[in-house]
Amino acid sequence: MTGNMLIAQSGGPSMVINQSLVGAVLAAKASTKIVEIYGALHGIQGIFDERFIDLRAEPEEVLLRVAQTPSSALGSVRRKPTPDDCRALFAILAKRDIRYFFYIGGNDSAETANIIAEEAERQGYDLRCFHIPKTIDNDLLCNDHTPGYGSAARFVACAVRGDDLDNRALGGVKIDVIMGRNAGFLTAAAALARQDPDDGPHLIYLPERPFTVDRFVADVAECMNKYKRCVVAVSEGIRGPDGRAIAESFSTETDAHGNIQLTSGALGENLAAVIRERLKVKRVRADTFGFIQRCFVGIASETDAREARLVGSEAVKAATGGRFRSGTVTITRLPGASYQVDYGIAPLAAVAKHTREMPERYINADGNNVTGLFLDYARPIVGPLPVTARFNQLRGRE
Amino acid sequence: MTGNMLIAQSGGPSMVINQSLVGAVLAAKASTKIVEIYGALHGIQGIFDERFIDLRAEPEEVLLRVAQTPSSALGSVRRKPTPDDCRALFAILAKRDIRYFFYIGGNDSAETANIIAEEAERQGYDLRCFHIPKTIDNDLLCNDHTPGYGSAARFVACAVRGDDLDNRALGGVKIDVIMGRNAGFLTAAAALARQDPDDGPHLIYLPERPFTVDRFVADVAECMNKYKRCVVAVSEGIRGPDGRAIAESFSTETDAHGNIQLTSGALGENLAAVIRERLKVKRVRADTFGFIQRCFVGIASETDAREARLVGSEAVKAATGGRFRSGTVTITRLPGASYQVDYGIAPLAAVAKHTREMPERYINADGNNVTGLFLDYARPIVGPLPVTARFNQLRGRE
Repeated sequence: MTGNMLIAQSGGPSMVINQSLVGAVLAAKASTKIVEIYGALHGIQGIFDERFIDLRAEPEEVLLRVAQTPSSALGSVRRKPTPDDCRALFAILAKRDIRYFFYIGGNDSAETANIIAEEAERQGYDLRCFHIPKTIDNDLLCNDHTPGYGSAARFVACAVRGDDLDNRALGGVKIDVIMGRNAGFLTAAAALARQDPDDGPHLIYLPERPFTVDRFVADVAECMNKYKRCVVAVSEGIRGPDGRAIAESFSTETDAHGNIQLTSGALGENLAAVIRERLKVKRVRADTFGFIQRCFVGIASETDAREARLVGSEAVKAATGGRFRSGTVTITRLPGASYQVDYGIAPLAAVAKHTREMPERYINADGNNVTGLFLDYARPIVGPLPVTARFNQLRGRE
Repeated sequence: MTGNMLIAQSGGPSMVINQSLVGAVLAAKASTKIVEIYGALHGIQGIFDERFIDLRAEPEEVLLRVAQTPSSALGSVRRKPTPDDCRALFAILAKRDIRYFFYIGGNDSAETANIIAEEAERQGYDLRCFHIPKTIDNDLLCNDHTPGYGSAARFVACAVRGDDLDNRALGGVKIDVIMGRNAGFLTAAAALARQDPDDGPHLIYLPERPFTVDRFVADVAECMNKYKRCVVAVSEGIRGPDGRAIAESFSTETDAHGNIQLTSGALGENLAAVIRERLKVKRVRADTFGFIQRCFVGIASETDAREARLVGSEAVKAATGGRFRSGTVTITRLPGASYQVDYGIAPLAAVAKHTREMPERYINADGNNVTGLFLDYARPIVGPLPVTARFNQLRGRE
């Protein structure tokens, strides 16, 4: 089938989401089946508003520079289409003879693509509809890992490596709050910062295991005892045994003023206050890494960038190949000592709606650290970190 | 004079403070006047506790790797010596025949070096006592700029470049709180993120100019009107017309619970709450960059790293050259179109105690942005940022 193509980006940006966009555009330019290549601005919203740009008109060198630029170059959106939306959509697609649709994003975007694909089927509108995976949370089903994760994880590992060195210099307790509402993969990546056995992060708390303040205080006390300092990586999504977000429990205490919102900033500062009060540690600091985890320039993982480019081109190949009407590109890791992946196509429904959490084997028995298996898993995705070193005479000494 | 050398690091770490340490050690190894090279752990505290390491014993390749490692490899401290401390100090220096003392840090460290130098004079203890400049705040007198600033500024510029792209994708108002209690240099560096005229940061607030919430709200409203989005860089040290820190004024409102401390995290979140409430903007986010601004690995400015190495070796050359008994190394920028600096020696008292602020000419008349002169000043210190790009069709359009 020959026709025009439309591509859009959705959800939270990542450092390599434009690699996928450019990977798809370059593959489309190389295909004889795709005529016009439109980009919709701000995801599905841009289709309703008919805000398109002509991606064929962009010079190759601009495409290549956009590819290495963080955040969504076409703009993003958090809107999910309703069935009514979908009916309106097809009038717009038909008007421009759009026969290839690609949506880059997380599981919500896969769900949107799935709704559109099903509606196309129902209406008898001939459409190839594909989802291109992206999420820094690394929580898509059917994937070994997801483009965007490796680069955000690289930011976290570099930040915590430096932060641990900072904590060595001035001592005390440092708490770093890291993104990931439901899956701990990104917070877990802090463990990649370690080189020596006494390096931080010394404690890692993930949404997958229940968090209690008493246990946290005891863990920090033990670490202070052992190392005279303590660096903690905490997921913004940690939950109590009742399943309620810890960030929420702190926020109700401070909401009365009406001017402190539920943010993960409050989580770190409240955990710091608890340590200050209960352990009488003088120097306790908290940082919340925030949005720069997903959009910092110049720090993308090379592996992540390469894979993100490829999932884009794989989606176009699948869509034009004739074997699939719809689907999502998946990344599978091949068995063996050296890191190698393979790309496949799964049904949209298989990654839509649901997400995955950290597997049990990646979390230690105490639920306050990751295992060596996790490090083996994450290292090749994140790539080698910049070289840092300590004096020989200080290693293992303090 | 032939004798042993002692070097230590003090105050907040930076990304290049170990370049200065290693620069000094390598120069000392090349000098015929310096016998033993001791490093004191945790600054002046390590001298009192006689916690030393032998820096000659560290292999050259370790020194070179430590040089490119952020944070203070010898550990740091925030202690200022009292006159009593000083008397105790000389017994320890004499015991080890230490005749060359180097202290790397900001203006507090220069003051400590000055106290020690004056006390040495008074006691008739023959000592060469030098301060090696370091501060991410860039607030030392007698210097065009200070080692540590360029790299922290590079972090800020990269973070805000990415954050501005993130804000383009999802819209709304984004507030970034940046370090610098009294001087706005680091916050000002956010302006280096800009490439296109409509790029953020759109507003920059510095401690040098009085901040009022009303004016801030009006500025953001104007920006939202113009660009439909707004990225704001705010110094943690912004002050009201009464000279009181804005962060403090917010914190008294929330202190009643006893569990929210005075931190710059609260500043960003409260400013965000004000915008949400008064401008009815739906998406308002705040990040506080925190400690990773000064210790992130792999992002140091090349110019900053080179200069930090050189101020270390210049200090040793001055100390062993015979012309000075004490002093601090200064960086002067040479006039001319291409960036070039010269190193000199100033008296310790000239940089001790007092600090400098941003010159008037670097701040715009409205006090909510920097001038082109500031960009010209900061660009060569920070170096070129990683390449990023937007689609041609979107430039100047939204």
